[in-house]
Order: sequence, then C-alpha cells, then structure tokens
Amino acid sequence: MNPDERAIKDLISRWHAATAAGDVDAVGALMSEDAVFLSAGVPPMVGRPAFETGLRELLKSHRVTSTFEVEEVYATRDLAYARTRLRVTIEPASGGSQNSRDGYALSVLRKQTDGRWLLTRDANLLGNPQENGT
Amino acid sequence: MNPDERAIKDLISRWHAATAAGDVDAVGALMSEDAVFLSAGVPPMVGRPAFETGLRELLKSHRVTSTFEVEEVYATRDLAYARTRLRVTIEPASGGSQNSRDGYALSVLRKQTDGRWLLTRDANLLGNPQENGT
Repeated sequence: MNPDERAIKDLISRWHAATAAGDVDAVGALMSEDAVFLSAGVPPMVGRPAFETGLRELLKSHRVTSTFEVEEVYATRDLAYARTRLRVTIEPASGGSQNSRDGYALSVLRKQTDGRWLLTRDANLLGNPQENGT
Repeated sequence: MNPDERAIKDLISRWHAATAAGDVDAVGALMSEDAVFLSAGVPPMVGRPAFETGLRELLKSHRVTSTFEVEEVYATRDLAYARTRLRVTIEPASGGSQNSRDGYALSVLRKQTDGRWLLTRDANLLGNPQENGT
C-alpha cells in the first residue's frame, strides 16, 4: 500500500468516526464540492451541501454508527477507487430499536491540487434494513 | 471528451448491444479477468468466469434489453470511472410479463498495457423490479 492508498484508507476511517461523533462539518471536509452519492431506488444526491443537509437532518434524531473494512484501494496519480465492506447501524437518539444494514460501498476519489484526496463519487450498496432487538 | 473517454463510452454501448444480442463472449471481452460486480443485498460477484456463467444461465431462458445514457465519464492515464443511467428489461424467452429496473451503474475501468480499456469494478444500483404488462 503506497502513501496515497494509506491516505485514502485514513480518510475512510475518519469518515466513519466523524459520522459516529455527529460531526457533519468533519464529514463534509472529506468530500469534493461536486460529490455525487448513488443509492439503489432513489435519485442521485448531488453536491456536498445536499449531503450535509441530509446528514444533519438525520443526526437531529438518530445516532449513526458503523463498522467497516477497506477490502481494496487503488490509486493512480490523481484518481483512485476504494471498495469497503460495511455495516451501518441507525438508532433513534431517544432509544428504541436499531436498524442495521450490511453491504458494500464503491467510492471514487480525486487528488486535489493541494495533495489532499477527497471522495467525489460514491455508490452505496447496503442491503435492506434489518431490525435488531435492543 | 478525450479519446480515452470516447473509448469508454463506446465500450459501454457495446456492452449493452452484446447483452441484448445474447453474445456472452463479447460481453466478457469488455471486462478484466478479475472484475468485481457489486449489487445491494447480495455478495460480490468476483471474476469474469463467474459473471459469464451467470449471464449465460440467465440468457438460456430470458432476453435482456436495456437503454442507457452515460451521464459522466472521466479518465486519467490508466484509471477511469463512468456513471451511467440505465433501464434494464428482462423478459422470458417464451413470452410473458417483463420486469424492468431503473437506476444507475458506477463503473471503474483500467487501461491495459495494450491500450484497451476494460471494466474492472462495477456497482449496480438498479431499483426493485417493476412488472410491465405485455
């Protein structure tokens, strides 16, 4: 794993940690302004502001935690992709039953002129939610 | 759109045409040996042989047609991605009701040492099937 690939793996770690901490600004700082998020059955979510607004809304009433494993990352000069296996759990802040979703993400990243990598395209392949007892 | 991006757009066109023609060998020739296909709710499909076996099995009893629009393609020296909006229709060869699925694919492509681009990672974000009257 070269330094670029390590930087991308680190970005993915920080993404999950910031989401669990409810720090939307920190998550937003890891994506490009024009980032596009694709999920099955819904229109693409286009742009960092739309993502931040959606996440902020969700985190008003829920806590989002996740476990993940970066199964693969490949970077060339200024373009990279990563395949991550993940499990995302969403639970109401007020308590109550959790929903977990398992699956993969396929992410495309671009190196910025300042040398930072940012997520720019993301395909969310999580399966249907499964309710867990609490 | 530069020549690499045009080549990738052409690859996607040939992919859809070869699938509709039932030409599994021609589809297989457009992907790398280690291609990985991700879909929500199922394990990854790993490798060209697994893909070809699955498609061959499906085409024994069904016809698969599709319409598509390459909304975006970006290529650097040897790595590229494409975002395609598509509608895939599967109908029994014996006639009967069709199923259509709408959505996106996010594909990663690698340039080979001989200059050809091949699909190497693919995220299938088609929604749930909708049955069409015939």
